[in-house]
Amino acid sequence: MTTTVLLTGFEPFNQQPINPAWEAVRALEGWREEGIAVHVRQLPCVFGDAADVLREAIDATRPDVVIAVGQAGGRADITVERVAINIDDAPIADNRAVQLVDEPIVPDGPAAYFATLPIKAIVHALRAAGLPASVSQTAGTFVCNHVFYQLMHTLRAQPRTRAGFIHIPFLPQQAARQPMPTASMALADMVEGLRIAVRTACAVQGDLREAGGGTH
Amino acid sequence: MTTTVLLTGFEPFNQQPINPAWEAVRALEGWREEGIAVHVRQLPCVFGDAADVLREAIDATRPDVVIAVGQAGGRADITVERVAINIDDAPIADNRAVQLVDEPIVPDGPAAYFATLPIKAIVHALRAAGLPASVSQTAGTFVCNHVFYQLMHTLRAQPRTRAGFIHIPFLPQQAARQPMPTASMALADMVEGLRIAVRTACAVQGDLREAGGGTH
Amino acid sequence: MTTTVLLTGFEPFNQQPINPAWEAVRALEGWREEGIAVHVRQLPCVFGDAADVLREAIDATRPDVVIAVGQAGGRADITVERVAINIDDAPIADNRAVQLVDEPIVPDGPAAYFATLPIKAIVHALRAAGLPASVSQTAGTFVCNHVFYQLMHTLRAQPRTRAGFIHIPFLPQQAARQPMPTASMALADMVEGLRIAVRTACAVQGDLREAGGGTH
Amino acid sequence: MTTTVLLTGFEPFNQQPINPAWEAVRALEGWREEGIAVHVRQLPCVFGDAADVLREAIDATRPDVVIAVGQAGGRADITVERVAINIDDAPIADNRAVQLVDEPIVPDGPAAYFATLPIKAIVHALRAAGLPASVSQTAGTFVCNHVFYQLMHTLRAQPRTRAGFIHIPFLPQQAARQPMPTASMALADMVEGLRIAVRTACAVQGDLREAGGGTH
Repeated sequence: MTTTVLLTGFEPFNQQPINPAWEAVRALEGWREEGIAVHVRQLPCVFGDAADVLREAIDATRPDVVIAVGQAGGRADITVERVAINIDDAPIADNRAVQLVDEPIVPDGPAAYFATLPIKAIVHALRAAGLPASVSQTAGTFVCNHVFYQLMHTLRAQPRTRAGFIHIPFLPQQAARQPMPTASMALADMVEGLRIAVRTACAVQGDLREAGGGTH
Repeated sequence: MTTTVLLTGFEPFNQQPINPAWEAVRALEGWREEGIAVHVRQLPCVFGDAADVLREAIDATRPDVVIAVGQAGGRADITVERVAINIDDAPIADNRAVQLVDEPIVPDGPAAYFATLPIKAIVHALRAAGLPASVSQTAGTFVCNHVFYQLMHTLRAQPRTRAGFIHIPFLPQQAARQPMPTASMALADMVEGLRIAVRTACAVQGDLREAGGGTH
Repeated sequence: MTTTVLLTGFEPFNQQPINPAWEAVRALEGWREEGIAVHVRQLPCVFGDAADVLREAIDATRPDVVIAVGQAGGRADITVERVAINIDDAPIADNRAVQLVDEPIVPDGPAAYFATLPIKAIVHALRAAGLPASVSQTAGTFVCNHVFYQLMHTLRAQPRTRAGFIHIPFLPQQAARQPMPTASMALADMVEGLRIAVRTACAVQGDLREAGGGTH
Repeated sequence: MTTTVLLTGFEPFNQQPINPAWEAVRALEGWREEGIAVHVRQLPCVFGDAADVLREAIDATRPDVVIAVGQAGGRADITVERVAINIDDAPIADNRAVQLVDEPIVPDGPAAYFATLPIKAIVHALRAAGLPASVSQTAGTFVCNHVFYQLMHTLRAQPRTRAGFIHIPFLPQQAARQPMPTASMALADMVEGLRIAVRTACAVQGDLREAGGGTH
């Protein structure tokens, strides 16, 4: 039996010429190993449209696992997001020049959804493989969180489809253009990290019970 | 007509001899100005017990506004929390030596509650007064978030009571004992910050519409 | 016998309306306590001119102790500088719009001078008083380092005059205008910190032997 | 005509099982390209001994260019050091359990030496190649700075031998074991960075004139 996996990555935004999320995701296009079939999609960095493209991809591929991937410029490690919140509050404009402030994503939706990926098991497996990783308690309030929330909302009646969001750092070539020293990660390590996340999401029932929170 | 305000601050935790949240809150005990009456309570830094004491205080004081205050060691500014999530995932033990991992706070509760304080107006007023402040998208997963979630859950059927959570930095004397340079804030500025937060919560209907989010 | 102390602080620079170094220093104008007499001077944030004003002040006041004070926006604590290096390499223009790049401050001068203040004793006394402080291994390569170097160069034949440089963080009102959360310190704590530094510099022979370095 | 290059990297220290400096340096053992011959040496992380091994290596290889490489755990980019200072002030013990505090490295030596590598040209070339890099104004006060100072002191009468120090971040597998998210760099990028540094040191006369300093 094959587990069907949908991976998404965003197009570049905020004046970056490249988005590591898409670079890492598209490197896995057509990746197959025993029991896993991966589909990839690029999402526009646009409120609303991004969720539309995601929903079409879910309809087209009928995945068992969905991992949306986004760039978190400045973060030092691969961060597996715990929770999506029902708010758009954009610090910058999206790629259609829209900057939503304090709008609910789904007007009557719940305040938040938790990821249904085994987030602790993924972080554990990444670290065991020598890749820095941690659980994140916030995916922000921009298009990444928007897509993450819409993903979980779309799948709310399908508890057997596991889904969530992973943030990855800048690529070295992006960090090299920042005015101040900024963390980055090699593309190969991001791609390997996504492979590990996919394998773990396909293999682990429930989740590991391992501390991954913060005091604040 | 008087607005009744309940402020809470935690006892010290994590080997700190002092908790700036309680120091700042207790400085406002008995503070009265036209239209505002303030009550204060100390909360134990203990899962469960902290929420019990909070609920008793709400029953006893019947507040119109509740602001729970906690220490966020390492943060540089006053952070007004946006959202409480339904999970206990403790990176350290609480003051009864309990370290909960991935337990829901309220088993059938919603995934999250948003603060009902005017968080943007409070941040705006703090900055206008020369106090560094920002909206925070995560209150962590320790006792602060636990109390914040229980606060909002307790008040879920009382939409006219505005409530939320504010994190404050270390005091200078705490930062002075850290091994690495660490941000802090003077007690007088914290106290003034809480006064401003209380006044703003009492005065502002709805909230300001001003960007306060993050890309991640 | 009275110890004569010269304190200097810079005028505002880099579009800041205020410089905490000058605010803290001028609060000590005319401060006298048993055995200590303090003189203060404002320095322009201009390569060359700053050192000229400093030398005139040294000639006019004949100090036993000189502490130049500067703003280090973004640092979290009071940093006592260890070493001044013989290079101007400005990341921004000075207040006369000059941006020197890789020019020696004194063409035939030594590569560096160490502060002759008891830097470890000052850090120790600050922390003991509850003020966050540390030794810094770099004063940068802008006008602060320029003045620090010229100060030590001017006094190179007067080993009994103890001199050095202290960096202080942003004031809260400056941090409140930064786009991202930024550390700050209350003016009263800065002023108290300078008092402690002055008293320690006047009282301590030699220096404490206490680790204050970094691995990098 | 061949330019002889000596690269050194330290053995592991501070409980790390590996030192990225040595891993990156030893990957270049025997590297040859037109006009460049590279020798590598491992240095003990021990005050005094490290400098002895370095001097023996210089005697044995008679290099035209020397680059000592060290680990700067926590830094996000490749940092080319500007200056070595004449002080040992160890925050931790070295690998022989010695923790020197405020001892001059060379009792009658100058306060500092500047690197004679083209530090700005190296940073420029690294960034142009997509590798994050910056000039650093401090190499710390531990064994890295000790070796850097002794290197420049040893070569003080040989101005035609260009020498300096480069710090590199943690490897991903080291960052994966840190308790908090920590920056890292892939080994392949470190190795490529050192190749670029070597080529630039061999090719560039003088240095680029490009701002690389800090306000503090």
